Amino acid sequence: MSESNALVVGASQGIGLGFVRHLLQKPQISKIYASYRSSESAVELLTLAAQESRVHCLALDITLEDQIAHCCEHIQRDSKRLHWVMNCVGILHEEGLKPEKGLRQLNADQLTRYFQVNSIGAALLAKHLLPLLKHSEPSIFATISAKIGSIGDNRLGGWYGYRASKAALNMFMRTAAIEYRRRSPHTIIVTLHPGTTDTKLSEPFQRSVLPEKLFSVDRTVTQLLKVLDSLDTDNSGQFFSWDGTPLPW
Amino acid sequence: MSESNALVVGASQGIGLGFVRHLLQKPQISKIYASYRSSESAVELLTLAAQESRVHCLALDITLEDQIAHCCEHIQRDSKRLHWVMNCVGILHEEGLKPEKGLRQLNADQLTRYFQVNSIGAALLAKHLLPLLKHSEPSIFATISAKIGSIGDNRLGGWYGYRASKAALNMFMRTAAIEYRRRSPHTIIVTLHPGTTDTKLSEPFQRSVLPEKLFSVDRTVTQLLKVLDSLDTDNSGQFFSWDGTPLPW
Repeated sequence: MSESNALVVGASQGIGLGFVRHLLQKPQISKIYASYRSSESAVELLTLAAQESRVHCLALDITLEDQIAHCCEHIQRDSKRLHWVMNCVGILHEEGLKPEKGLRQLNADQLTRYFQVNSIGAALLAKHLLPLLKHSEPSIFATISAKIGSIGDNRLGGWYGYRASKAALNMFMRTAAIEYRRRSPHTIIVTLHPGTTDTKLSEPFQRSVLPEKLFSVDRTVTQLLKVLDSLDTDNSGQFFSWDGTPLPW
Repeated sequence: MSESNALVVGASQGIGLGFVRHLLQKPQISKIYASYRSSESAVELLTLAAQESRVHCLALDITLEDQIAHCCEHIQRDSKRLHWVMNCVGILHEEGLKPEKGLRQLNADQLTRYFQVNSIGAALLAKHLLPLLKHSEPSIFATISAKIGSIGDNRLGGWYGYRASKAALNMFMRTAAIEYRRRSPHTIIVTLHPGTTDTKLSEPFQRSVLPEKLFSVDRTVTQLLKVLDSLDTDNSGQFFSWDGTPLPW
């Protein structure tokens, strides 16, 4: 790939910020657009952008379609094309929201919130990214999913909203891959299981993870970029683990 | 099974109403609770209930948890136990909402509505039904899903919200089955693909269905009851087609 542009959605922390750092190591990438929801939690990203002229920060709440449209229009005016899009937005817990251990903890507002952030946001990105990814050079749109969102692999139960929102995300991305195949045949769309990574998302649950199974952000991003490098358009619409193995739906 | 009670959720029309009629043919069923969202579209059900003392109608909007709780409390006071629960609520189209042919038609409100009706409602039912299904006799909680909600089977694309909401439903029900196995081990929880059935849901799309593949409500309900009769608790957490074959997630 010659000169190319990247967008990392949810780049303020964790795996998203890791992608920004790793993509900066690729000299062929001219611009890295990096979105963050709140500037308060994006200090590291904003500091990095102040030092690296290739990093361009954009404020974006993925639950608000007009903000997605606005960001994509901005990129369109600025660069016309994207080659790498990494969507790293996802919630497992936030203020007032915790993964449900059992049915008793289910409520409609919390479940709706999981779908809005973890599933619908990615579908709306697929909608608005199409003009940016549709060109004759290879492009990739990868979204962080989770093996816990595999229906077939579900043996332990619990975490209703997170699981269902990731299953819905996988369906949205598979459906988008089918549409892109027709309208933007050089684009690969995949969902990825990063493995448990040492981020704020996994922090409250790390006690039950064996140390060798808890990846650093750096390791996760290295592994996922290796998986992405190995893909071709025949793999579009699939769901891959960090080691490159396809996962069951 | 000796004396037993049934609940059909979404019983005003289509497959739900068909279940009420078929369950009435089972003399061992003492009471059939039948829920409807709006009395305007439930005329047939309300007329049937006026003639059949075993049918008890309940107003229920599945997107409102307090109504679900209220219905379950009513059944608890009235009968204590349920043995058959058929959840037939589902939307594909309604006023202002149509399945999306492509990404261009996606919007967050419509997608949220699909999840609230087709996925979250069933999860909230699983929450509130537990005390009614938890007893020493066999019980079943079946929800109408759709093969189009199979991620692995998705080859045509389109219908983003409907597909993703059914995938999420399948995940919720599989997760609930795991919890019920522990807390209510005699309950079977499954999702069912009814085949394309001649109802209001499929009406706008029937032109593209071969006549022999368009089932009457009577045929669909007969087939699904046959599938349900063949299941045991080892099948809980699975997804079956109308002919009894397990479907891929």
